Amino acid sequence: MERKRYSINRRASFGASVVAMAFTAAGAWAQAPAAIPPDVFPADSEEQRIADLVTANHILADQNVLDSYGHVTVRSFKNPKHFLMSGNRAPALVTADDIMEFDENSMPVDQRGRRVYNERFIHGEIYRLRPDVVAVVHGHAPDVLPFTVTGVPFKALIHMAHFIGSEPAPVFDLEDVEGPNNNMLVLNPKSGEALAKKLGDRNVVLMRGHGMTVVGPNVRRATYNAVYTQVNARVEIEALKLGQPKFLNKFEVQRVGQINRAWDGWADQVKGARR
Amino acid sequence: MERKRYSINRRASFGASVVAMAFTAAGAWAQAPAAIPPDVFPADSEEQRIADLVTANHILADQNVLDSYGHVTVRSFKNPKHFLMSGNRAPALVTADDIMEFDENSMPVDQRGRRVYNERFIHGEIYRLRPDVVAVVHGHAPDVLPFTVTGVPFKALIHMAHFIGSEPAPVFDLEDVEGPNNNMLVLNPKSGEALAKKLGDRNVVLMRGHGMTVVGPNVRRATYNAVYTQVNARVEIEALKLGQPKFLNKFEVQRVGQINRAWDGWADQVKGARR
Amino acid sequence: MERKRYSINRRASFGASVVAMAFTAAGAWAQAPAAIPPDVFPADSEEQRIADLVTANHILADQNVLDSYGHVTVRSFKNPKHFLMSGNRAPALVTADDIMEFDENSMPVDQRGRRVYNERFIHGEIYRLRPDVVAVVHGHAPDVLPFTVTGVPFKALIHMAHFIGSEPAPVFDLEDVEGPNNNMLVLNPKSGEALAKKLGDRNVVLMRGHGMTVVGPNVRRATYNAVYTQVNARVEIEALKLGQPKFLNKFEVQRVGQINRAWDGWADQVKGARR
Amino acid sequence: MERKRYSINRRASFGASVVAMAFTAAGAWAQAPAAIPPDVFPADSEEQRIADLVTANHILADQNVLDSYGHVTVRSFKNPKHFLMSGNRAPALVTADDIMEFDENSMPVDQRGRRVYNERFIHGEIYRLRPDVVAVVHGHAPDVLPFTVTGVPFKALIHMAHFIGSEPAPVFDLEDVEGPNNNMLVLNPKSGEALAKKLGDRNVVLMRGHGMTVVGPNVRRATYNAVYTQVNARVEIEALKLGQPKFLNKFEVQRVGQINRAWDGWADQVKGARR
Repeated sequence: MERKRYSINRRASFGASVVAMAFTAAGAWAQAPAAIPPDVFPADSEEQRIADLVTANHILADQNVLDSYGHVTVRSFKNPKHFLMSGNRAPALVTADDIMEFDENSMPVDQRGRRVYNERFIHGEIYRLRPDVVAVVHGHAPDVLPFTVTGVPFKALIHMAHFIGSEPAPVFDLEDVEGPNNNMLVLNPKSGEALAKKLGDRNVVLMRGHGMTVVGPNVRRATYNAVYTQVNARVEIEALKLGQPKFLNKFEVQRVGQINRAWDGWADQVKGARR
Repeated sequence: MERKRYSINRRASFGASVVAMAFTAAGAWAQAPAAIPPDVFPADSEEQRIADLVTANHILADQNVLDSYGHVTVRSFKNPKHFLMSGNRAPALVTADDIMEFDENSMPVDQRGRRVYNERFIHGEIYRLRPDVVAVVHGHAPDVLPFTVTGVPFKALIHMAHFIGSEPAPVFDLEDVEGPNNNMLVLNPKSGEALAKKLGDRNVVLMRGHGMTVVGPNVRRATYNAVYTQVNARVEIEALKLGQPKFLNKFEVQRVGQINRAWDGWADQVKGARR
Repeated sequence: MERKRYSINRRASFGASVVAMAFTAAGAWAQAPAAIPPDVFPADSEEQRIADLVTANHILADQNVLDSYGHVTVRSFKNPKHFLMSGNRAPALVTADDIMEFDENSMPVDQRGRRVYNERFIHGEIYRLRPDVVAVVHGHAPDVLPFTVTGVPFKALIHMAHFIGSEPAPVFDLEDVEGPNNNMLVLNPKSGEALAKKLGDRNVVLMRGHGMTVVGPNVRRATYNAVYTQVNARVEIEALKLGQPKFLNKFEVQRVGQINRAWDGWADQVKGARR
Repeated sequence: MERKRYSINRRASFGASVVAMAFTAAGAWAQAPAAIPPDVFPADSEEQRIADLVTANHILADQNVLDSYGHVTVRSFKNPKHFLMSGNRAPALVTADDIMEFDENSMPVDQRGRRVYNERFIHGEIYRLRPDVVAVVHGHAPDVLPFTVTGVPFKALIHMAHFIGSEPAPVFDLEDVEGPNNNMLVLNPKSGEALAKKLGDRNVVLMRGHGMTVVGPNVRRATYNAVYTQVNARVEIEALKLGQPKFLNKFEVQRVGQINRAWDGWADQVKGARR
């Protein structure tokens, strides 16, 4: 059944470079009840994606989802095979001038000697395998980490985190790809592809002893997903100590929430940050 | 016995739109010992309720009780069948201009195209069933969430949280009303009424996998109740790991504390917020 | 053996109103090794005690030891049977103008209509029974609360919290004094005296479902004691989950640390607060 | 086997006073994969070490790794037998003017009446036994403390904390050196040497009921190590509650990460601090 949704998603979002389609992709992500009016986003463009990407960097740092080593990217609007990512900087410090373009092999289009993130293959290989994905967040949130090393299933327990799904989030272990003598980092296309395949059609993949990678149909929803993945982890770890929690069922995880209310609130908290 | 208090409360606060009565309602909430001088509140009015509502939004965001998706409302002073609520915004950003009036069916009196909160039926149906209630807080505090999914009784463990009561707080599960294929949100009067009935004559109702709804006889006490519900959750979850805690007994939960000392302290921390 | 130390303390600090003696009292608190140079404090006076009291209010709020309902007091320098305490305000908001004098029966010397803390008998009765005590902190720190309701022994586990002692901190239950129908607050001299007796010659007494009361030979050390009581609680509760922790032994708890380094650091963080 | 690595480290970093060598030492710390470009540091000098030391004080306070009683030091560039350390101040308040030079016996070269840290022997004896070490952090982070008192092995669980190693971090108990009647502080060369020997060739040594001491080949990496020791503790303590975690293997702990990205992000957060 998962495979089926996977195929559907692939088709539904194949034209992710077209504005309307990009946000239809969000709608196709799951069935939204008529009662909730959909978010109204600014018109999609390369500039808008970069603006949201810079804000997402600041938000994710401010919300303690990303430490200095995390990163967030967006698929290029002009060239959907490419993606946009900051040069090698702590997310809190990223400005629009730091945003660089990377090609389908995760190589910088115009490096000019700038340092780049070593883990960019995480992003590039997910964009290759998941045309519906328009934004990717990769980080090491401490609340999530215990679920990456213990085999305890990580599932949607709270309604805000419906996107995690009712089946356990997949856990990627680099040792399975590169053997015991590995660097704990995804540093090449091969490992990036293995991670992307482990993610499959899901929104969250955990990485053993390392962190999480979270995707979304636009920067704002990927940001939301990353924030509430962390909240779900905090709640689940406490609930597990009390007893056997009741998780969201397979219908409840199909809901779609609004994004802009949270985005606006979080963005307001970082509005003093550099741009 | 609970039913009896419920009836008493209904009578005692039926004239909640009259200033004196509104604060008598607070006194009737439980028996205050003579030794504690009651709070002195500013004269009640529509304007004062709106001013407190805006401050409550800022406080509850600042105290991490409400995330961007929570909301707080107050019964209208002019028309006690109506209530006042912000348009669809993150609580930290709410200003007096955002406050809208909603009728007894939770519909906006004068929408003028403004977006409204989808979960407003939580508030409207509680105001209908509980005339003693003058303010309602609804949120998703992570500390409280484990108690919504595990069946572990949530009771008053610390004196500040006496209002939770010595019997377990009721837990509402939307699945019981709308079946497994539900949105995890209270989006219509029917579910709102079911939630209000689950709350009964209590001050706190938990919502499975979703959060909590907390009420009070005025905005300040509802705010206090929401803050200390969260503190009680934090303490109870740790205490349960140590052993079997001694909860407040049925007399101890009848106490009434002062509100303004905390309100003034919290309000001072958000005094720079927009209005 | 405890009784013996108790008597010694009583004698050693009987002249607590004399500057030199007040700080000798600190020395007598326990045997300081020669290697650690003692703190140099500003000359003792009523004004200095008030200045430190105001700063202590701000520090204890800033360090999350006191919520809006906590309070800190100091014995009067001019009249050692009296003590100084803010009027009824959240600690973060206290200024020198709020400081009032209370007599040996915890009644305000010059009330002039000002609201006072209801729990002032906690302070007054401790000052009566413990001449060595020059400052008292009373609060409801969430980290400490689980130890007040579970019977799990709370002891010095980290060197900074040596003052807690190697025997379990006493736990006061108001129900033992006033019966089941009590207010959870110490509102009269009788309950205050019972609490002071439960404290005995110790530095920390826990209060069931309520909080903690912490004492010291001056405002700065009482502040330090309150902060590190909370840290000890946080560490002990986590350590207990891992296994059986090794607590400080009866010699190790006799150490005396420096205070001013922490005081200066904490004070710097609140230097923008009102005075 | 540990002894062997220990000897190698000694040789590799014997010329730690030479700029190039100091940073070669970092390279020799473990084998860095070719894919990760090494950090580019400013030219080494006494002034640069002091500047980094002041920033490290502010960062470690801001990141809650050091409370007012922690300290961080750096080996002198001009005289590698000496080290540089602030006078007795809370780390958040340290300025370049507070930095003093200490000789190979941990005595101040030019005290001029200034108060010094009593625990400076921790630093001095580690610099004596570990020529590869250029910076030392000593603190009392609450997240780490439970591992110091329970015997539960503390090991690298997350990739950022690889430097902790795949074997349990050693735990130093002052009682083993000074007997039960000890001060819980390392106050003399004998105890300092015992601690340094317990550290051996590792990067982290825990201290029973007291805290941790963390080393690095330069100030920035020691700062990074201290921050992520704390994160590893937070993750491990939660993971242990879920089940048996999978720790990093002996190869994975050999990795070398970049430092400057985190350093720049942390430094930006304290850029308003006094200098």
